[in-house]
Amino acid sequence: MKKVINPQPQSWSQLTARPQMRKVDLSQLVEEVFQDVRSRGDAALRKYTALFDKAKIDQIEVDSEAFKRAESQVSAPLKEAIEKARKNIERFHRAQQQEVVKVTTTPGIECWQETRAIESVGLYIPAGSAPLFSTILMLGIPAQIAGCKDIVLCTPCSSDGQIDPCILYTAQLLGITKVYKLGGIQAIAALTYGTETVTKVYKVFGPGNQYVTAAKQYAMLEGVAMDMPAGPSELLVLTDNSTEPAFVASDLLSQAEHGADSQVVCVAETESQLDAVIEQVNLQLPVLDRSDIASKALENAVFVALDRVEDRMRFINAYAPEHLIMACQNADLLLADIENAGSVFVGKYSPESAGDYASGTNHTLPTNGAAKAYSGIDLSAFQKKISFQKLSKEGLLAIGQTVELMAEAEGLAAHKNAISIRLNALNNE
Amino acid sequence: MKKVINPQPQSWSQLTARPQMRKVDLSQLVEEVFQDVRSRGDAALRKYTALFDKAKIDQIEVDSEAFKRAESQVSAPLKEAIEKARKNIERFHRAQQQEVVKVTTTPGIECWQETRAIESVGLYIPAGSAPLFSTILMLGIPAQIAGCKDIVLCTPCSSDGQIDPCILYTAQLLGITKVYKLGGIQAIAALTYGTETVTKVYKVFGPGNQYVTAAKQYAMLEGVAMDMPAGPSELLVLTDNSTEPAFVASDLLSQAEHGADSQVVCVAETESQLDAVIEQVNLQLPVLDRSDIASKALENAVFVALDRVEDRMRFINAYAPEHLIMACQNADLLLADIENAGSVFVGKYSPESAGDYASGTNHTLPTNGAAKAYSGIDLSAFQKKISFQKLSKEGLLAIGQTVELMAEAEGLAAHKNAISIRLNALNNE
Repeated sequence: MKKVINPQPQSWSQLTARPQMRKVDLSQLVEEVFQDVRSRGDAALRKYTALFDKAKIDQIEVDSEAFKRAESQVSAPLKEAIEKARKNIERFHRAQQQEVVKVTTTPGIECWQETRAIESVGLYIPAGSAPLFSTILMLGIPAQIAGCKDIVLCTPCSSDGQIDPCILYTAQLLGITKVYKLGGIQAIAALTYGTETVTKVYKVFGPGNQYVTAAKQYAMLEGVAMDMPAGPSELLVLTDNSTEPAFVASDLLSQAEHGADSQVVCVAETESQLDAVIEQVNLQLPVLDRSDIASKALENAVFVALDRVEDRMRFINAYAPEHLIMACQNADLLLADIENAGSVFVGKYSPESAGDYASGTNHTLPTNGAAKAYSGIDLSAFQKKISFQKLSKEGLLAIGQTVELMAEAEGLAAHKNAISIRLNALNNE
Repeated sequence: MKKVINPQPQSWSQLTARPQMRKVDLSQLVEEVFQDVRSRGDAALRKYTALFDKAKIDQIEVDSEAFKRAESQVSAPLKEAIEKARKNIERFHRAQQQEVVKVTTTPGIECWQETRAIESVGLYIPAGSAPLFSTILMLGIPAQIAGCKDIVLCTPCSSDGQIDPCILYTAQLLGITKVYKLGGIQAIAALTYGTETVTKVYKVFGPGNQYVTAAKQYAMLEGVAMDMPAGPSELLVLTDNSTEPAFVASDLLSQAEHGADSQVVCVAETESQLDAVIEQVNLQLPVLDRSDIASKALENAVFVALDRVEDRMRFINAYAPEHLIMACQNADLLLADIENAGSVFVGKYSPESAGDYASGTNHTLPTNGAAKAYSGIDLSAFQKKISFQKLSKEGLLAIGQTVELMAEAEGLAAHKNAISIRLNALNNE
């Protein structure tokens, strides 16, 4: 834990740097698994699932029996909670549907843009320490609204070949029935090439560890798109004395419990505001189930006091947090100054966990400063846009010479000729 | 050139496959240049520019004198043409500005999405055989409309250190004054890390050869976003006997002249329609300036006749062309069936070159089948979206328990606690 009072801007790049992740070169392993899956299909998938996940799977795809069992294993109150979350997420993502943009750029020239669903998408849901069924909602709902034809899901099974019932229940709720018991590199390889069982997809979504990340990078080189670069989760809270320090501490801890590599930043006006939060962190930490993990994450936490509000906002934008809680006075007035962030939580009754699960926004967000150039997942991530243009005779006559001149200046005579041949025909009509 | 009549769907994947590009492993060279630029900055840039571009440059940045000279070297008619194109492109891209999406997902919970410009962007403009100043319009105009603060441009200089006046004129017209005489790997490395002279950027745009492509892939691993994977340009024309075969041939040739690796596909209903186009291609080809290049590209051209209109549309979607010309009857009625394409040209007076320069649509488009998952460049490529949520007390009370239950089921107690601590405070008010 680091506490810094009024640091000079020169030191900000160091303060906003993420903890260095140990980079392991996985390229050889990834190449090997991909090539094997490409050439041997399901057989290779079974081999690597036995090797990496210690699970012997005969059937790679989850069968309808397992879905039925899952349905009976999830409690009624949890089902109700999932349904409530689903509705909010659906409302927000449905509103993101875009109208056709249509413009007459010159009389006789119409240009427009339409969206189309990406036909086939793959969702990767990690298992590990917890079954992240909430991520199925965050990826599956916009995929459904977009109208993707094939929505398939990969998630690693436990060593006895089972998948958590919450995962299966949530998938089925969204109509996702192709669920494969596949994790790690082999899952991404299967989605990239397709196998006897697994549907090939055009874009892969979802978080994952360093193996999944390396596999997604390889998949990109093989022509499969991916959602965004993944990294450890992060939270920055901007606070002052308008919000209970206990609230702020609970938010910082909710981030810290994700993993030892999670990063937590707290920005305030004064040192005493920071101290009040730190005191609460120390009070709340010991009783947490995952206090070990949270303690490790807190070692990299940064607490920064900055006198001037302009500096606080500049610091936030320099950090570009995945999650940003504005737990301060006049939060609304500061929103226009936020340039770089994934998802913003406004006011003291908007904890990050509300957005992690149920407010309606997406929780798949850019980390590691990627918010400077990337958006979080939304409806458009499951769509692509196509441009159209239609020129009438009048339209072609209006820009024909323009195109001829520019093509000539670029040394492209055949480009020019495609215009000239039509202009000649029109002049001879 | 390959002509195929009513091919069975099983053979389509082979027919729609792009010519195999010889893959050269450039990773070691790229790594070396990047590390050198990172540690030695401008000095390394001068070294590689001397080595790869055979140019000795003292000043890396183009000075105001050069801009002034360029202004006087571009002819008045060409300036007028560029201005006409600029206006159309600006009109179409300005219309792509998005409204804020705002939804009350549950009483007391507001969720919304706002766009922000990516602060710092780098445009890469290849030189090579022709000065592609039209690409500056296609990248610079949306960057300007988005409101990117830093828009910088890299383009290789000739061996005497000069840059084509059309490039400089067009850049200046758009207010882009930071132009660096840098090409290839070292240009992308400079944009990735920044140097004494070059501004570091968050996203890199623009086409390029295999060196630029490999460098952009490396830049992504270093945290810089990029527009899309680049590949050789392509065109598919859907035709019948409603369009003059000479028009169609001129379009195919305009694509073929781009490079020996350009791909050209023609789809029609009958063999005789294909033959009429092929006859015109053979007539028009010999008189072209770049007939050598075009001939080579035509070796890989594919001419396909398919009886049924459904099959023609399915074939188009399986190919996912960068450019698609609908030079056929009832083109308008078929547009809804287009699933995968970059930019579509509707009707016989809409040649590809209209969109390459001046109709208003963007010409930076997904190639090599990437149109299945990627959009072409538009305004949104220069922006990112931020999600916001604001919960009132009422809103938190409405979903508090939902979040608690879901967090608990995912084994994340601190996530639950961030809600519980607030609910307790509200209950004690």
